[in-house]
Amino acid sequence: MSSSLSSLQAAAVPDLDRELANQIFDDLHRIGFDGLGMTRPSYGDGENQAHALFVRIAQDYGLETRKDWAANLFVTLPGKNRDLPAVMTGSHVDTVPCGGNFDGAAGAVAGLLVLCAWAKAGLQPERDTTLIVTRAEESVWFPLSYIGSRTAFGLLAPTDLETPRRDDGISLRQHMQASGGQPELCGVAPVLEASRIDSFVELHIEQGPVLIGDQVPVGIVSGICGSTRYRSAVIYGQYAHSGATPRRFRSDAVMAGAAMMMALNTVWKEAEAAGAEMTLTFGICQTDKAQANFAAVPGRLDLAIDIRSRDEALLEQMNTRVIEEAKRVEAEYSVRVDLGPRTRSTPAVMDPTLQAAAKKLAEQMHLPVVSMASGAGHDAATFAGQGVPTAMLFVRNANGSHNPDESMDMDDFLKGVGLLERLLSVRAF
Amino acid sequence: MSSSLSSLQAAAVPDLDRELANQIFDDLHRIGFDGLGMTRPSYGDGENQAHALFVRIAQDYGLETRKDWAANLFVTLPGKNRDLPAVMTGSHVDTVPCGGNFDGAAGAVAGLLVLCAWAKAGLQPERDTTLIVTRAEESVWFPLSYIGSRTAFGLLAPTDLETPRRDDGISLRQHMQASGGQPELCGVAPVLEASRIDSFVELHIEQGPVLIGDQVPVGIVSGICGSTRYRSAVIYGQYAHSGATPRRFRSDAVMAGAAMMMALNTVWKEAEAAGAEMTLTFGICQTDKAQANFAAVPGRLDLAIDIRSRDEALLEQMNTRVIEEAKRVEAEYSVRVDLGPRTRSTPAVMDPTLQAAAKKLAEQMHLPVVSMASGAGHDAATFAGQGVPTAMLFVRNANGSHNPDESMDMDDFLKGVGLLERLLSVRAF
Repeated sequence: MSSSLSSLQAAAVPDLDRELANQIFDDLHRIGFDGLGMTRPSYGDGENQAHALFVRIAQDYGLETRKDWAANLFVTLPGKNRDLPAVMTGSHVDTVPCGGNFDGAAGAVAGLLVLCAWAKAGLQPERDTTLIVTRAEESVWFPLSYIGSRTAFGLLAPTDLETPRRDDGISLRQHMQASGGQPELCGVAPVLEASRIDSFVELHIEQGPVLIGDQVPVGIVSGICGSTRYRSAVIYGQYAHSGATPRRFRSDAVMAGAAMMMALNTVWKEAEAAGAEMTLTFGICQTDKAQANFAAVPGRLDLAIDIRSRDEALLEQMNTRVIEEAKRVEAEYSVRVDLGPRTRSTPAVMDPTLQAAAKKLAEQMHLPVVSMASGAGHDAATFAGQGVPTAMLFVRNANGSHNPDESMDMDDFLKGVGLLERLLSVRAF
Repeated sequence: MSSSLSSLQAAAVPDLDRELANQIFDDLHRIGFDGLGMTRPSYGDGENQAHALFVRIAQDYGLETRKDWAANLFVTLPGKNRDLPAVMTGSHVDTVPCGGNFDGAAGAVAGLLVLCAWAKAGLQPERDTTLIVTRAEESVWFPLSYIGSRTAFGLLAPTDLETPRRDDGISLRQHMQASGGQPELCGVAPVLEASRIDSFVELHIEQGPVLIGDQVPVGIVSGICGSTRYRSAVIYGQYAHSGATPRRFRSDAVMAGAAMMMALNTVWKEAEAAGAEMTLTFGICQTDKAQANFAAVPGRLDLAIDIRSRDEALLEQMNTRVIEEAKRVEAEYSVRVDLGPRTRSTPAVMDPTLQAAAKKLAEQMHLPVVSMASGAGHDAATFAGQGVPTAMLFVRNANGSHNPDESMDMDDFLKGVGLLERLLSVRAF
């Protein structure tokens, strides 16, 4: 068989095991259910158990398994020529607090399903084909982007290991160790090198409403947004009696915050009107529960600022505007704005050849697809950032992600996995 | 002696007992100190102990004491002619959570100091002169205005007795009973009647920065602001992934809230430019701690809206604008705004004759004073609302009120009490 992409030849189409998929999702649900949604913290019990589940199944199918020092899991179906750069797929199995059962897990299950199907059908690819089940993709636990995939490429700074986890204050280093990792190896040669990877394809549920709105089961991702964030900005004003304090004596943190939010919203609208794509979100906006009351000018407002775009220059421009607006409201509202540390991730472009191949394969399968951007970040961005030809497939999903109501139809999922299988097949065989 | 106001004759000036004042403030501090500030909840232990302290001192000085069914305390120095309408003064001794030691208490201590001074000097006024130490003035505990003074005038509705206290959920009725009141008497003839009251003068610390700014120790209040409030407004949006949800799919509760706050702030600015006096405060503004996170479009924002003015028509106009803006942002941001119950209080005008008398007396005492509005509400508003000639004196106070940093100089306080004594004297003798 040939790996020529122009002809899109691939191995015979194996059966995908729907029952196995159902079984894994059920097991994952049992592992992470918190009574309302799924809670599998990064390097926590739930993530560890999910990794162990993948190891058991992979070994049942005779697949190779190994872990790196950061406890990322690699499941490999060996190729005929193990010297060739490998074809890779993968995603994560941690969740946000009270999230859903499909964000991350769908891509990991999809990769395992493909490898198990190939193994069961006795297919042996030309190249090693490897599923990576990453660690710690959800940065709500540790305020760092793509910990697992970045570690595999040797991109994590040793100081990052001291970052405490939000819920328990215990360091990444200690959590890694408790999860079977070896953080003391940080700094040694990385496990992954771009030159040894032919391509990376990640399947993921769509986290927005586009595929539902367009009634299309699968999306082909054109690029992944980067972000600029101030997760813990604080506006400091002065608590004062609401009735007895005229405007000229006020330092009103809430009014200053509202002014800043509205001004940046206007900048966003103008950017959109000029054709730019971005999002601007103040997901957290809160006065201090202990001190604020209805009869006092508020003396403190905590804000989280999240800006995303595929356009890095636009992210930088917006960052400048945030700083300018903070200064403006400081002067106009007699407050002090502490933006706090900025965190960021870099936008990633998906490989045009892989996108074109995915579209052509979908056509051959009579599978309707649309091209779309990913507003959310993914491990695929790490691979793309290292120069690995990278693609992403989105599966239609109702109710967004990061909540207990994620809702992916199994028929849609298997259509997505079917396309993933073909795309990996044209690269691996 | 004559009670003619034109000549402003009064009794001889007695000595005010500075030591007694210090002692009472110290005792009150011990009663209410919560480790950081003062917490004496309405109808709570602290308020009860403060009332008991006033009874003890009053009885030491041979003053009459009694309580009404709502457990308001009345301390009286009997006049020569007990059939004449009484001269009254008073304030409250409850505090907001973690408040200061002077808001309310200063006025109650001032009244007691005057009566003790008169009693000690053997002065007997023509009229009964009565200090009322009210109950439950701070509406942060029960969301009702002026519970104590309104109850004394028979203005509390029996259904109000079922209102739960914010901190413990126990009803006003039960708290009243536990504090020695008899709520079952609600609806019987009120204890106070406007026709039986000659005048009411309340001393209070200033709760804003005007007297500090103007370097004047005492203010004479021209009027008390009324209020229109929505203490528990909620904007309902839809939680969604911040990166994966384009603007057209968003129901962003925070952005809607910011738009509403900025629009109403503009209305306020316009009203001020047109010469109106008012304040607008969003003292509480918070996303839901359990669900909101930096990477999600916020699905809920809780807001408290507090509008104050001496102009009742303006309050009604602002209320209309609040409702209009809520509707506007509902349409523009695809959210639902539930303003929740409206609470309100009526503005009160201070008696011009009493104000003029206070100014003239201050002049005679070489005491610098300014005329000013009270942005905060006070029990005095209840008396004024019943047609009782009413006045208020403000004492300079640093750092505002309703916080542990209230700071009233004892020299300023005694100047204020001195003016109060003279003003009561010209009415009572």
